[in-house]
Amino acid sequence: MKPVKETSGTMHMLADLTWVEAREAIERGAGVLVPIGALEQHGPHLPLSMDALAVTEAAKAVAQRLDVLIAPTISYGCRSKPLSGGGPAFPGGVGLEPRTYMALVENVVRELLRSGFERIVVLSGHWENRQFTYEAVYQARQPDDEGTARVMVIESLYGDTVRKSTLDEIFGDDWPGLAREHAAIVETSVLQHVRPELVRADRSVDDAQERFPWWDVVPAPPEFTTKTGVMWKATRATPEFGRKIWADVVEALTTAIDEELFSGSRAHRAS
Amino acid sequence: MKPVKETSGTMHMLADLTWVEAREAIERGAGVLVPIGALEQHGPHLPLSMDALAVTEAAKAVAQRLDVLIAPTISYGCRSKPLSGGGPAFPGGVGLEPRTYMALVENVVRELLRSGFERIVVLSGHWENRQFTYEAVYQARQPDDEGTARVMVIESLYGDTVRKSTLDEIFGDDWPGLAREHAAIVETSVLQHVRPELVRADRSVDDAQERFPWWDVVPAPPEFTTKTGVMWKATRATPEFGRKIWADVVEALTTAIDEELFSGSRAHRAS
Amino acid sequence: MKPVKETSGTMHMLADLTWVEAREAIERGAGVLVPIGALEQHGPHLPLSMDALAVTEAAKAVAQRLDVLIAPTISYGCRSKPLSGGGPAFPGGVGLEPRTYMALVENVVRELLRSGFERIVVLSGHWENRQFTYEAVYQARQPDDEGTARVMVIESLYGDTVRKSTLDEIFGDDWPGLAREHAAIVETSVLQHVRPELVRADRSVDDAQERFPWWDVVPAPPEFTTKTGVMWKATRATPEFGRKIWADVVEALTTAIDEELFSGSRAHRAS
Amino acid sequence: MKPVKETSGTMHMLADLTWVEAREAIERGAGVLVPIGALEQHGPHLPLSMDALAVTEAAKAVAQRLDVLIAPTISYGCRSKPLSGGGPAFPGGVGLEPRTYMALVENVVRELLRSGFERIVVLSGHWENRQFTYEAVYQARQPDDEGTARVMVIESLYGDTVRKSTLDEIFGDDWPGLAREHAAIVETSVLQHVRPELVRADRSVDDAQERFPWWDVVPAPPEFTTKTGVMWKATRATPEFGRKIWADVVEALTTAIDEELFSGSRAHRAS
Amino acid sequence: MKPVKETSGTMHMLADLTWVEAREAIERGAGVLVPIGALEQHGPHLPLSMDALAVTEAAKAVAQRLDVLIAPTISYGCRSKPLSGGGPAFPGGVGLEPRTYMALVENVVRELLRSGFERIVVLSGHWENRQFTYEAVYQARQPDDEGTARVMVIESLYGDTVRKSTLDEIFGDDWPGLAREHAAIVETSVLQHVRPELVRADRSVDDAQERFPWWDVVPAPPEFTTKTGVMWKATRATPEFGRKIWADVVEALTTAIDEELFSGSRAHRAS
Amino acid sequence: MKPVKETSGTMHMLADLTWVEAREAIERGAGVLVPIGALEQHGPHLPLSMDALAVTEAAKAVAQRLDVLIAPTISYGCRSKPLSGGGPAFPGGVGLEPRTYMALVENVVRELLRSGFERIVVLSGHWENRQFTYEAVYQARQPDDEGTARVMVIESLYGDTVRKSTLDEIFGDDWPGLAREHAAIVETSVLQHVRPELVRADRSVDDAQERFPWWDVVPAPPEFTTKTGVMWKATRATPEFGRKIWADVVEALTTAIDEELFSGSRAHRAS
Repeated sequence: MKPVKETSGTMHMLADLTWVEAREAIERGAGVLVPIGALEQHGPHLPLSMDALAVTEAAKAVAQRLDVLIAPTISYGCRSKPLSGGGPAFPGGVGLEPRTYMALVENVVRELLRSGFERIVVLSGHWENRQFTYEAVYQARQPDDEGTARVMVIESLYGDTVRKSTLDEIFGDDWPGLAREHAAIVETSVLQHVRPELVRADRSVDDAQERFPWWDVVPAPPEFTTKTGVMWKATRATPEFGRKIWADVVEALTTAIDEELFSGSRAHRAS
Repeated sequence: MKPVKETSGTMHMLADLTWVEAREAIERGAGVLVPIGALEQHGPHLPLSMDALAVTEAAKAVAQRLDVLIAPTISYGCRSKPLSGGGPAFPGGVGLEPRTYMALVENVVRELLRSGFERIVVLSGHWENRQFTYEAVYQARQPDDEGTARVMVIESLYGDTVRKSTLDEIFGDDWPGLAREHAAIVETSVLQHVRPELVRADRSVDDAQERFPWWDVVPAPPEFTTKTGVMWKATRATPEFGRKIWADVVEALTTAIDEELFSGSRAHRAS
Repeated sequence: MKPVKETSGTMHMLADLTWVEAREAIERGAGVLVPIGALEQHGPHLPLSMDALAVTEAAKAVAQRLDVLIAPTISYGCRSKPLSGGGPAFPGGVGLEPRTYMALVENVVRELLRSGFERIVVLSGHWENRQFTYEAVYQARQPDDEGTARVMVIESLYGDTVRKSTLDEIFGDDWPGLAREHAAIVETSVLQHVRPELVRADRSVDDAQERFPWWDVVPAPPEFTTKTGVMWKATRATPEFGRKIWADVVEALTTAIDEELFSGSRAHRAS
Repeated sequence: MKPVKETSGTMHMLADLTWVEAREAIERGAGVLVPIGALEQHGPHLPLSMDALAVTEAAKAVAQRLDVLIAPTISYGCRSKPLSGGGPAFPGGVGLEPRTYMALVENVVRELLRSGFERIVVLSGHWENRQFTYEAVYQARQPDDEGTARVMVIESLYGDTVRKSTLDEIFGDDWPGLAREHAAIVETSVLQHVRPELVRADRSVDDAQERFPWWDVVPAPPEFTTKTGVMWKATRATPEFGRKIWADVVEALTTAIDEELFSGSRAHRAS
Repeated sequence: MKPVKETSGTMHMLADLTWVEAREAIERGAGVLVPIGALEQHGPHLPLSMDALAVTEAAKAVAQRLDVLIAPTISYGCRSKPLSGGGPAFPGGVGLEPRTYMALVENVVRELLRSGFERIVVLSGHWENRQFTYEAVYQARQPDDEGTARVMVIESLYGDTVRKSTLDEIFGDDWPGLAREHAAIVETSVLQHVRPELVRADRSVDDAQERFPWWDVVPAPPEFTTKTGVMWKATRATPEFGRKIWADVVEALTTAIDEELFSGSRAHRAS
Repeated sequence: MKPVKETSGTMHMLADLTWVEAREAIERGAGVLVPIGALEQHGPHLPLSMDALAVTEAAKAVAQRLDVLIAPTISYGCRSKPLSGGGPAFPGGVGLEPRTYMALVENVVRELLRSGFERIVVLSGHWENRQFTYEAVYQARQPDDEGTARVMVIESLYGDTVRKSTLDEIFGDDWPGLAREHAAIVETSVLQHVRPELVRADRSVDDAQERFPWWDVVPAPPEFTTKTGVMWKATRATPEFGRKIWADVVEALTTAIDEELFSGSRAHRAS
């Protein structure tokens, strides 16, 4: 993988382009990445937009390395679940009904396809968006549709990107699993690295659900979430952990997108 | 109307708050404004996000003056129409189906109501969102719903806010009507004022549709739009015009929101 | 524009034709016009079907002049809004949810297209139907659909058809704008002209909203509408005003439909 | 059953009332009847609106006898089926998708309930509307909804109303069943009686499907319908048959509505 | 009609096949039958799954005679109606909303078509599924779709299959009509014949609605159904009646399916 | 956990109960379990209904131990994905659109709640149903709904139930992860244990995808699935592995359901 020529940050943003510039990008075979986050509680120390911030920053890092434009971030994601994100009872969170979310993502992807983009990446960093994101993309790009356009779906920002060695270094034997690590070490560390001014480190806490079963219950009993919204040991986060996690994330994303959409017989690179 | 205490810009953004801070804002009676734009062609000289940029900037200006948080901007709006915006054929534009758009806006407003916000403003700056925005809000806040929360709907950024004297000064006897003035003097001037770095002034052109009838036709004949996407005399735009228009817009919005949601018997002001 | 040969009134009505006659009309290139109204309060002196009556009468007048059949009037329109029509609280009104309305109009237009009509006019006379009518037509006749059929969309009966000179004569300096003139001078005068037996002139009143802002609020405060449902000075209406307005309306509609669907290279006229 | 005081025809039409008059009707306990037809082929001799005409005329007859207003006729019904109505291939027919139809009927009934009507009759005269009409009403008036309003659903105009003795007199041993008797003796006779000017008696034919099985097939084979759209012996129709059938229909409807909605403990009659 | 070679029972079940075996069946032109029942009260003596059991047994009998696979039975049907099935108030019943039911049936049929089946039978044994079943099939197999696949729709198990002579023998002059005969002689007799172990004959009762009008009312008055859920004289049922009814049903179904999908120019038979 | 009194197998099946018996079960506090499977390819050696068979057998085992009725199995599940199940291209598979699936599951759960069940378990054994199952349950049992009924959601049959020691014993160091082990050792072994007559052991194969990335692509490239539909080493399956896996599954399910719905303060047990 060879990095693309560095360009001004602003020109990676589809929103900042004119339609003429967008046409040029499409014609040269540029990709487009749709970052999807959520507006969901992340404890007393992280902003509601944690997931949107992370995917947007990741998208920018990718766009420094590959010829990929960044579509406007979808800032609202699927309704939070008590076990994995605290649920809809925390004030300030805005959760989409999955059917609304799917309609939105399908519509955006369909429009990008209609515009002529052939290399599309949908990158969601919000746990509750999983499956719904894939399904929305599937609806937008049905098997019988003509054309060669392909849409890559990445439904988790950290789950498959952070190396085991990095997790071992950070968590040792105390790794609760990503599903449980909400608003805790990983996310706090990452934000301390990529947007430190948005972390209220002094309000960070350690917390844990009383029960974290392998099944779910509707309506969720109160012990399925915490009062703070932090689900693990957020105070252990450090910017250095964030730096290491982020390096893994960016490298894995860049390599994956390059391999799937640009390299080999399908290779394309702006020069 | 008395301006609120100046606070750091970042704290106006709901996305940047923690859920604890959001709760505090709700409890003190803060409002929340949802800016809605579009990703639509605006000629060879303005970015696709023109409408989103304008409402977001307007929201920030309002939030400097009233105790109103800004929800994440809805960056995608309804599908462009050939007569008023050029239509869906321009590359790079991403238009939502109105039913997707309505589901999204309804969902966001419903969630803000559920969180406890009682003063909500939905501000759309994209022509094709009209009626759909109101309907979405109506679905979210039905007449029989309990509670005292109220949602203010503003479906046009310039249409009712810019003074006639300002228009007269800018256009003289050559005022084509706002519906026709797409990507032209008003929008170019405004962006030159609020985000000048995003205007490619050197690519600005004057253009006009061959026909601009008072009816519409589906599918639209080619003469209903232009090849450039500019529908009027964009080259006449100036930053100074932008400054005057913007002053009118911000004053009208602030006064209206204050009157409707904060003043009088319903008055509330952060102190 | 040359008037078509006068035919018996009944034969303009698609509903009155047999399928064999409908086939003949389609084969000779006849147009079809779908009148859309509403069942909405129009004060104590006008019938609930005011909007449906007006578009149906207008359709008949057009059908006297052009080879256009009249489809059964869609008698129910979108839910009334307090500011512009009084809102849903007036007894007797039946408002469709816009999503129901759009499904209905889309379905009707799609069927007319399937039957083979190539010149279709959708004429709505109800303010709250705007945008929803266009969108429904767009869904029925998508850009990628094959064929040469075209659908003309007219979303306002008076807004673009009545000459300024006529308004000046009637209103002088006291023109409140069409959006506000509900159940008042224009509509009362028109019905006095086209269906005088349905006007209860003795119950006509003058009234006005306490507030008529350029924004909207949900739920609407009571001062956004009136107790009578009349929004302006209905008592000033006269049959003579109605005659003048109607002459403008009919001429504008006929000319527009002829120009767009029949004249020039696309010209067609029954002889 | 005692007939109501004769009133002018026009005052039975909800569309012709003002909202004040509608309110009075609601307050005195008047019923409201929603006639539902279709725009469907009925052979070379009957108009496309046969079903809508019949239910509208039936509604008028009922309204002469009971204190029932007539809502605007729903002129469009469910898509025709080849076996029972000829199917969608006949030009001029406009069939609603059943989901559109159900949304429309549900919406209209819901609005009448919201207006305060407590005695509602939904009368459909189109075979393909069956079940969908009931379901739409069920959605509008759910078992858990509060209030005493009741909605009567009549899904066939002739099926349960015409006496066996009348059918015997007309058909003798040659009764093919109502499902098959489309655009034939019953309908032609009825229209000759209620709206004779709309019958092209000279174009009437006898016809019959090659196959009329007790199952259905999608897509329907051509032998499931006829080329004329007449499914039986239309030439045998007479105005006198129409008079007899109609007398049965009107009496049965009036008696049923009176029994179900007005008589006994729930009795109400305008005086 | 020549019976197919007897094969092991299990191989008629599509669910029991591997995809390779399913492919073989499709390639040889096998049909597939989708049995649809309901989970609905059938009195104190018959199981909730009466309708599903009957169609599944009928499907098995057909599959002994024709080269037809049996798809997994759709065990849930449309919401019961008080007049015809007792309605939704009986515990244990699970009624689908018709819109859910239609989506399900459409989806299943569409998938069978996609898999390559060209002879599909949809057989519903639940009264309230009528019309919705046909509509679902119509949506799955639209007139404009390519291909030669045909879907046969049978919306009633007994209505058109049981000979008049059989009914006469069982009911004599006491035939209330199939619509009324719920959980009574026909169904009890049939289950005594096909699945006798599931009949609680000792709890069988005779019962009847106080009123059984030819119209319907929403919400239904209590006298439209019975307290037991039996609507007629269930105690008169006998296994022998069941045997006779069943022989008629199986013969009629087999003959019909063979005639419509296998014989004549379209004939196909596994050998 | 104390096993319930053994009862005849048939009486665990809700479908086999009369409504009177269902009422008794509801009144004594019985639970109800909805098994959900799929009709999806499982290689050349396992039946299409593998997932439905497994959850149904698991449900029966649970019902031997707890007072839980078994609702009719939902035999159709969400559309297969190429990476995890082979995708929709294998003949014989019938995949529901997730929106259809959600509507179905929501409707069934809603009806069980309406019937009065307070202990509901939804058990899905099909990978692609995940998230959609939870969402459907959430829609059926919204947080604001009244009542004490609780719905337990189990979205994976093996994922959280099989002990690590069992997996280690079976797979040693060759564990590809459950997502990849489709139609392979786990499923083949289980069916050899619970329904051995349905396994075509002689057709069993070992196979593997060429690529199994941590992202997905739409449309999926061919190397994301295999030609056989087996994704791992199915030939290594043994009935003894099946017995061990099954023992874990049944114990984990029973313990979980007992703990969540019956024990402790909410304890209930048939005696």
